[in-house]
Amino acid sequence: MIIQKEISLPHFPRGFHLITDIIRKQLKFPESGILHLFIKHTSAGLTINENYDPTVLDDFETSFNILAPENMDYYTHTIEGSDDMPAHIKSTLTGSSVSIPVTDGKLNLGVWQGIYLCEFRNGNRARKIVATIYY
Amino acid sequence: MIIQKEISLPHFPRGFHLITDIIRKQLKFPESGILHLFIKHTSAGLTINENYDPTVLDDFETSFNILAPENMDYYTHTIEGSDDMPAHIKSTLTGSSVSIPVTDGKLNLGVWQGIYLCEFRNGNRARKIVATIYY
Amino acid sequence: MIIQKEISLPHFPRGFHLITDIIRKQLKFPESGILHLFIKHTSAGLTINENYDPTVLDDFETSFNILAPENMDYYTHTIEGSDDMPAHIKSTLTGSSVSIPVTDGKLNLGVWQGIYLCEFRNGNRARKIVATIYY
Repeated sequence: MIIQKEISLPHFPRGFHLITDIIRKQLKFPESGILHLFIKHTSAGLTINENYDPTVLDDFETSFNILAPENMDYYTHTIEGSDDMPAHIKSTLTGSSVSIPVTDGKLNLGVWQGIYLCEFRNGNRARKIVATIYY
Repeated sequence: MIIQKEISLPHFPRGFHLITDIIRKQLKFPESGILHLFIKHTSAGLTINENYDPTVLDDFETSFNILAPENMDYYTHTIEGSDDMPAHIKSTLTGSSVSIPVTDGKLNLGVWQGIYLCEFRNGNRARKIVATIYY
Repeated sequence: MIIQKEISLPHFPRGFHLITDIIRKQLKFPESGILHLFIKHTSAGLTINENYDPTVLDDFETSFNILAPENMDYYTHTIEGSDDMPAHIKSTLTGSSVSIPVTDGKLNLGVWQGIYLCEFRNGNRARKIVATIYY
């Protein structure tokens, strides 16, 4: 069985943001299954990581800026701004989707796990996620 | 319900290649579900990224060569050639699978999203993908 | 249909470890479907890569230490030790889950593919995986 719902996220600035509660409030979970979240954009990503200390979010932003730096001479796709091509690379490094087991009617995340929206572009952007639950 | 099909891709040279249309032509999509694509190789990957400007594909090749460079002194797995160990690392960075929601009988990709084959080895190689649709 | 099982892995030291056989022995596979494995931790990851030459595992450890180095001045999340923030970054680079097609009652991995536990923390840690098979 499949349940599907498109979720419009609130606008977030560039950076890594915990969205676990936003996602949870939008969905009803079955007894057992999988939640699949897919972001419909190529300059933002989804990942699962530490849910407690906000400095982790900051260090992700710093570290991803080192992994895919802006304004490098070797970029040829520069027409959309210095943050655009690095954003594409970063979104492939995180991935466009996460999938999480649902157990006993709840997301079966580890104690310290949360769902991150990874916003790689400047500005405050509207992002859409397709949630699919299969059970 | 599960539909599964093995897809043999045409030979592609090293680089990032859009394969969305190749995949679409091989499959019939249900009303609602998920398409899971899995590549059966450890020196190639799958990812979802920008589907329009070919310079994005070039910049991915350049950037991944910086993330996992060839001929570094610290590699010990060198027997299969200088492109081999970097290819393994790159395939873990992209991942071996992508999963995409199917909605209203179509792949529910964002306007700018396409499916990339990431070919990390030199030469023109034959790659196999297992497509699984569950609905 | 959904089958779900939590698997407690044996303690592994920091590094990349093949766990394909451990996973196989814990599960019964249907004729056709998908196996989804999810690791409930934010400083370890799962990936699929080369299953034969142990030097590949060593080179992954070296290369991931370069991608997310320890003791960098720019980290602010340092309270849990020098291996902790790099471990979070590495776990996002590998991802928290892998999904593998099941075909003819077996994992449909390529000849050279195996499942890796990526243990990014020092010490020998106990890790839990949730296996979900849908068919």
